Formats: sequence, structure tokens, C-alpha cells
Amino acid sequence: MIGKKRILGAVLAANMLAASFGGGQVLAADMMNPPTAEVEQGTLRGFMDEDIYTFLGVPYATAERFGMPHEVEPWEGVRDAQAYGPVCPIADQTAVGTDELVWPHRYWIQNENCQNLNIWTPELNEDAKKPVMVFIHGGGFKNGSSIEGAAYDGKNLSEYGDAVIVSVNHRLNVLGFLDLSAYGEEYENSANAGMADLLAALQWIKNNIASFGGDPENITVFGQSGGGMKILTMLQMPEAEGLFDKAIVESTGTMRFVEPEQGQMVAEKTLENLGLDETQIEELKEVPYHDLIEASTDALAEVGEELGVSLDWRPTLDETYVCSDFCDWAGEVPMMMGSVFSEFKSTIHVGDGRKNEWTEEETAANLKDAYGDNAEAIAEEFAKVFPDKKLADAYFYDGARRLLVVEPTLDRKLENASAPVYSYLFSYEAPVNGGTTALHCSELSYVFHNVEIPVVARATGGSGNETALRLQDEMATAWLNFAKTGDPSQEGLEWKAYTTDEKYTMRFDEKSGCSILGDEKLNQLIEEVEQVRVGY
Amino acid sequence: MIGKKRILGAVLAANMLAASFGGGQVLAADMMNPPTAEVEQGTLRGFMDEDIYTFLGVPYATAERFGMPHEVEPWEGVRDAQAYGPVCPIADQTAVGTDELVWPHRYWIQNENCQNLNIWTPELNEDAKKPVMVFIHGGGFKNGSSIEGAAYDGKNLSEYGDAVIVSVNHRLNVLGFLDLSAYGEEYENSANAGMADLLAALQWIKNNIASFGGDPENITVFGQSGGGMKILTMLQMPEAEGLFDKAIVESTGTMRFVEPEQGQMVAEKTLENLGLDETQIEELKEVPYHDLIEASTDALAEVGEELGVSLDWRPTLDETYVCSDFCDWAGEVPMMMGSVFSEFKSTIHVGDGRKNEWTEEETAANLKDAYGDNAEAIAEEFAKVFPDKKLADAYFYDGARRLLVVEPTLDRKLENASAPVYSYLFSYEAPVNGGTTALHCSELSYVFHNVEIPVVARATGGSGNETALRLQDEMATAWLNFAKTGDPSQEGLEWKAYTTDEKYTMRFDEKSGCSILGDEKLNQLIEEVEQVRVGY
Repeated sequence: MIGKKRILGAVLAANMLAASFGGGQVLAADMMNPPTAEVEQGTLRGFMDEDIYTFLGVPYATAERFGMPHEVEPWEGVRDAQAYGPVCPIADQTAVGTDELVWPHRYWIQNENCQNLNIWTPELNEDAKKPVMVFIHGGGFKNGSSIEGAAYDGKNLSEYGDAVIVSVNHRLNVLGFLDLSAYGEEYENSANAGMADLLAALQWIKNNIASFGGDPENITVFGQSGGGMKILTMLQMPEAEGLFDKAIVESTGTMRFVEPEQGQMVAEKTLENLGLDETQIEELKEVPYHDLIEASTDALAEVGEELGVSLDWRPTLDETYVCSDFCDWAGEVPMMMGSVFSEFKSTIHVGDGRKNEWTEEETAANLKDAYGDNAEAIAEEFAKVFPDKKLADAYFYDGARRLLVVEPTLDRKLENASAPVYSYLFSYEAPVNGGTTALHCSELSYVFHNVEIPVVARATGGSGNETALRLQDEMATAWLNFAKTGDPSQEGLEWKAYTTDEKYTMRFDEKSGCSILGDEKLNQLIEEVEQVRVGY
Repeated sequence: MIGKKRILGAVLAANMLAASFGGGQVLAADMMNPPTAEVEQGTLRGFMDEDIYTFLGVPYATAERFGMPHEVEPWEGVRDAQAYGPVCPIADQTAVGTDELVWPHRYWIQNENCQNLNIWTPELNEDAKKPVMVFIHGGGFKNGSSIEGAAYDGKNLSEYGDAVIVSVNHRLNVLGFLDLSAYGEEYENSANAGMADLLAALQWIKNNIASFGGDPENITVFGQSGGGMKILTMLQMPEAEGLFDKAIVESTGTMRFVEPEQGQMVAEKTLENLGLDETQIEELKEVPYHDLIEASTDALAEVGEELGVSLDWRPTLDETYVCSDFCDWAGEVPMMMGSVFSEFKSTIHVGDGRKNEWTEEETAANLKDAYGDNAEAIAEEFAKVFPDKKLADAYFYDGARRLLVVEPTLDRKLENASAPVYSYLFSYEAPVNGGTTALHCSELSYVFHNVEIPVVARATGGSGNETALRLQDEMATAWLNFAKTGDPSQEGLEWKAYTTDEKYTMRFDEKSGCSILGDEKLNQLIEEVEQVRVGY
């Protein structure tokens, strides 16, 4: 372009000038003079989203393919942080999900240089020491992004809770979890590179979040599904010690990992599928992503078949970087954990439209169809555990996953632990499409206090749904109180810690409350039929 | 899943029941009982976006790869139209654009079966006969989608204008424009398959839009950039006759097409690059998209180099399906056409931050840097044409594109024409990042009456920007009035038709108004330096 050099000089000067004003003096919603913030590497320019200072796509690390993350080089002048950064590449998805209306997605530019994070904060004062909540996205270890859910926007939670909200992108699938340790020291942790990114992100947050008004000594990680698995994995990583203070694990449970020999076989097979040998790792680093993900996904299936196991992209238990058990330090980390009523058995998954119109006969027939000889016992138990629900809802209750994933992990977390754990069940039926029972992910719209933002509002029953509005207050407050103090209780909604003897659970629903749910027998009866075994 | 068969039966029954209620009786914003609509192929279930009936991802055609589109098979029961359908695959994009803040994007699930459209309407009454506005997206003929711009959401325009808004996905790039006509009769129009999709969409709209309250005899197409090119192309297609009644062409101009021999060379080279020969077209239809787009994009470059021309995915002038000149019927189609102040020369493209702080000396130096010996004459002309602007803005005025693309097309359109044409220039500087001059795409946020929706509001200066609010009223009203009556005038803002003698142009800005702009000399002076030659 014409005169580029001169203009760029002027821009840098202007940016430095803007930087010297600092963010604190910028008027709310003033897009003309956006706020800036200083981090170790230089100055960032964000923007105001109404009253919330917003910095998007902030780089926290760089890494070569399969390499460990290292610090970002400092930059001169001002770096824009006004748009989401690229997200990690994933295998092509070619169909819009049937859950799209009730769990709206965002897709984005993909690039394996995806180590960036997003920050929402009410002020940029270094002394503000607000609690920091770091959201770690789901999608197993292979899919998703920090912005995949339309509900993942942190602005409203930051504003409602006077807290600093951060969300993180990191390497996934073959880019984050291919075990090349056999091919050189520099690939020692390539099997867990995606986890290494998360640790690098948390380290960057600890080092820099004070510039965004956050308290580096009070960091809570929260994640759902794969995000929860990542948090549970970090609790088994010695190097994660001190990087966060509290943990919230949503709709996640029994963890599965990769054994080193399995992962190494997958890497070997991946090379083979690409026509490469063990001397050609440099070439492997240049293979186009589409070819790489195809070859390695095939390798996962081939090795899985050979070994008679189901393999997927997951962290590898090398017992050094990732260990089999929770680390000692993990015992001191308070934890909240819970699941939702239907998870993968919602009305949108196994039928929709008119369960609330079923006659008694239809309900009985459907339960019989679903649960066979256990149908009557399940109906009886369901009525005890959920007296407020219709019997038809038993058809959509994912008791098997509840049984298998929440409690064993909570119990395991309590072994030799000093910190309390808290259990919840989100069971609100959204008034959508004839009644939509709570599905995997759906609590997040409430946790993020986003039930009325566009697109998400369709999933929660439309603007002005009083119950949804109350629920988002209750849930966001519980999450925020836990982040602030380690106790998720709030006025009018005491939340007792879960113990192996007294399995207190907070139910979020038409009427929320904490009680001993007594759902073990019900869950067991469903599991007998469904044999889910491993939840996610 | 358990009992799937039985449940599905129940669902179908429920859906048929819901369908029989009809959409008109559904309460606004009632997600519990979503509206349904009848089309030729069956029943669709949409949803209410506040008071607007919304049907997304509605299939209008199906096609095999490289084949002509044909009608969708009828379905039984109710088909969900509650989420956007997949968009056409495009080549990987790996960087977030520098224009992201000021022109926010949406990306989506890609699938070559992308023949679907979206409908927003205030009512479902067959007798309502509201004007229909069909938005055709940009991105040349190779990129983009019906939802790429966050501003493309049709709900607000539908509500503000009491009109039916439709947006369309169709095949792009190699999927829509590879010329396989040499390899079999069934590929006769494969070089223009993407255009054939658009015709199929318009035919579907004509046949079905009455069910959504639309008037099939009053259809206006509007498109920007590539969307405008598609509209200009349709005006050169005999088969497009009668499919639309008015046309709005935004930021588009001098058209370039592919010659048959060029396109056939590209197809031949594509086969060669994939190791296929002319007997293997069936294999070509099975090649994974990533390989196909890579091989064919390489072929474009290789053939272009061989011929010494710049080739891209564009329609082919076969003089049968697509002709060199506007069709006779096109003369009867009233047209609006315009561009924006900076197009590809905005503050975000050639510098940003502080042009509004430039001293007189800096401005002079920058203009000299940009325009050399023409700088002084340009400054003088600029002050005459844009007395309301700062001289610094001359640096960011894309006069060359304005010269080359708008007027020749308007003049060409007027030859032997009975219908009027209208010209506009959108020149509003958004109060963003120190002042952002109007860039390619930016008028669409105003046209769609979306300046205050989330994300877009950041681009237009934040919620409550009075000028942006007035401008969106003026622009949406002009577009709607043109769609309703063929005359874009409104109370207080008369818009005179452009003629070759009196080049009336509506300027949308801090103060909007219609006048003879007299910008030819200014544009010519800039073109002398920049030699843009072809605009888009």
C-alpha cells in the first residue's frame, strides 16, 4: 500500500500515546479510545464491551508443532487484542448438530498457533485483586474451542460477579497428544503438549492477571465435559502445583488415559500411514493438517483394533508429567463437581416434541421399552428421587452416567484430602420445543449468566423466562462464591459439602435446594440396563 | 438408543399435531410451541425470534458434485428449520482478519450439500404479500456464506420493514465453477453450477414464499461485493428472467468472467494435478474437498500464468447460460448501486490510530507520499467534493474503485433500459479506534438495521451512537422503500435517479443527502496514481 512505512510509524507513535493514558481513564463503551493494558511482553489494546474491559486473542505462548510451549517474544508498540484469536484445528465437521438450537455453537478461524486467551474484567486496577475464573473448554481432548459455545462469552459473568473471567485455547487432538517421545528429547512431552499449553496459560495468567485487576493468588479453573477432564488431569500433574487454587468440574467423570506403549504405537502407525519413517519427524512437522489428522485418526482406530481397546486423543500417563493419581497438592484444592439431568439422553437425543403429553399408558410402554424388566423398579425409585418430575422424565434421566462418573471421582478426590468437595445436579427442563430436558452442556448458559443473550435465549426459553433468570443468578452466584471463598453457598441457598457418608447434592431446578438425593439405587438400576460403564 | 423406534413414532405424531395448529396461532417468543409452515416439500418447524418467525437452513435444492441442482424430495412429518444449514466449503483460512473488530464474521459447519436458505418474516399469512428481499452474500465467487457477516441476521430488517428477508447459501469456488463441460452432457453447466443454485433458490422462493407472508411477484435481490457480482451475472442469464423484480448491487463493479477455453484448461489441469484423466470424472466427484480445492486452486494459478491472465473462480461466459451482455429483460429491472468511502483503503487497511490528529504538515506529507505529483490536485478536488471531511481523509478515499466500478456499470445498465437506476455512497466514519473510515462491507450493518446487535455494535461505535441509529433508519428505509415500490426515496430524503447526464448520488453520512457529487475528476486523479483498473 501507498506510504505504508510512514503511516506505520505514525500508528506506532499513536499507539504508544494511547498506551500512556492507561485503561482506567477510558469511558465505558467508548470504542473511539479503546483501553490498553500492560503485560510482560508489551502493551495490549482491547475494547469496552459496555462496562467490561475486554481483551481477546491474547497470546500466552508459542510452540512449534509437537514442541513444548515457550514464552511469547516481547513486542514493540501496541498489539491489538480486539478479536478472538485462531482456535486449534480439528477434524472436519460436516453436519450441523441436532442440538444446535438448544446448544448454539460458534466456529472460528483455525490455526495450530492457537495459544491465546480471552479476558473480561470490570477494571484494570493492579490492586483490585478480584477473583479470577479460568474457563477450560470441552470437546474431549480433540474438539471445541474457547468460543465454541455461544454461552462461553465471559462479559456477563464478569459484570454480574465483579470477577475476572478468562477463557483459553490450546492444542488438541494430534497436535496436542501425539506421542513422539521415542523420536527425540525435544518431543519428550509431545504426548501431553496440549496439557502443557494449559499449564503455560495458567502461568501466564498468574504472571499477568494483576494488570487486569485479577488476584494471581486466587485462581479458579472451571471446565465442562472435556474441560473437566483437563482439570482432573491437571490435578495429576506435579507441574500444575500452585497454578490454580480451586476447581469446578462439570459433567465429567471417570477418566481414561493413554498408556505410553499405546501412544507410541499410534505415533508409529501415523508415520507409516503418511509414508514416513522415524528419521522423518521434521517432515511430519510440515505435513498439512488435514493429512495429519486423517493419518493419525486412522492410526488411532488401527492400533485400537489391534489392541482391542477404544483409543482416542487423551493425555498419556507417563507417571512423570502426568501421573495416575491425584497429586498430594490436589488434596488441598476445593472442588465442585456435578452433572445434568439428561446429559446424552435428552429429548433432543432420544426423541422430542411431546413427552409432556404422554398418557400414563404411553409412559409405561416407553419405560418398558427402554428399561425392560427394570422399568417398574426404575419408575418407583424415580418417583422417590424426583417427586417434582413427571414419570415420563425417567425415560430421559441419564442415571448411568450420573452413577459412574460423578460419585467415584468425588469419593476419590476425598481420599487423604483436606479440602471440601461439593456436588450438584442441574435438572431444569427448558420450555423449548415441547420441553427440553437438561442436556450435556446446558448448565453453562446459566453459569455464564448468559441465558438472555441472543441465540442462547432460544435455548433457555426466550427472553423474560423468570425461572431461567433466577437459575442463572443462583448458579452464577454459587460458582462465583466458590471462586471467591471456596464455599458455594449463598443467602437462601445453603450448599453443604459432599462427604462419602452424606452425599449432599445441590439440585438446580424449578426450585433449587441442597439435600441428600439418594439416587444411587435409581442410577444402578438404569446402569444395569444401559451398561454405559464410562461416561464421556 | 433405547426404544428409538417407538419414540420416533410418537415424535412424528406430535409433530403432525403441532403442524395442524399452524404457525399463526403461536405466541411471540414462545419457544415451547414453535411455529410451522407448509412448503411444497412438506412441513417446516421454525422458531420465534421475538416477534419474527424464523426458519433457518431450509433446503431449496439438492445436487451431486458438479451437477445441476434439482428439487428436494418431499418429506413426511415435520422437518426442523431451527438452525442454520451447512455452508459451502472454502479453502482454509488460517488468520483472523485485521478487519474483524469492524466487520465481525461468523464461520460455520461446511458441507457441499449447502443448498439451503434462511427466512425471517413478521407473519405466515398467505395473503400478506409483503415485499421479499433476498440477500446474496459476498466473498467473490469463492468465499463467504449467508451468515458470514454477523450483520447478515435478517430479523431486525424484517421487523423494522415489515418485510420478508431471505438469505441464501450456494456452491462456490471449485464446487460451483469448475468447467467440466468437455467431459459429458451432465456437466454442461458445471462452470456455472454456483449460479444455477442461485436460480434454483429464487425459483423455490417464488414457489413457496407466500407461505411465509411474502409476495412472489415482488422479489428484490440485494448483494454486496461478490453478492453484487452474482446479481449482475444473473442479469446476463436468460433463465433468470422473472425470478426477481428489482436489484441492489453494493460495492461491486466492472465484472470479470472466465472464457470457456480458460475454464476448460483449468479443469484439465485440475485433473492432471490429481493424477486423473478425462475418463475419471466419477473419481473426481469423490476426491476429498481439501485435495480438490488445492489441486484446482493450483490449476487456476498455473493456467493463469500460462495465459498471462489473472484467473479466479468466476462464472463462465458460454453465451447460452451466461451471456456477455445484460439480457433484454434486465432493462426493466430497477437497480440501486453504490460503494463506500474507503472500500479497501480504510484506516484499518493502510494505517490506523490517529489520522484525526494529523497536523497540517503530516497530512500534506502523507498525501504527497500517497499521491506524488497528483497530491495537490487531489487535495483541491477532495475539498470540493467532500467539504465536510478532513483533508486527511483524502488519504483513505478509494476514488479509483469508485471511478472504475460504479459508474460504468450504471451507465451500461441504462443503455436501452426502461427502469431507473439509483446511485449511493456510504461515507460515514465510525467512532472506533480513533476513527474508522467506511470499509468494504461496512454499510451492511446499517442496511440490515443491525448497528446495535452484539458484536456489530463494536463496529458501529457502540450502543447509543445516535448517528449510527439514524443512518440505519435511513438506509434500511431506502432499501425497503426500493423493494416495496422501486423508488428508494423517503420523507425528508428524496433520492433522485441517476442518469448519464445527471449523476445524482445519495450520500449516507453525518448528514445524508442526494446531489450531483461531481467526483469524476477526483476519482480520475487517484486512479492515475493507483491504477486499480478493476475493482474487486
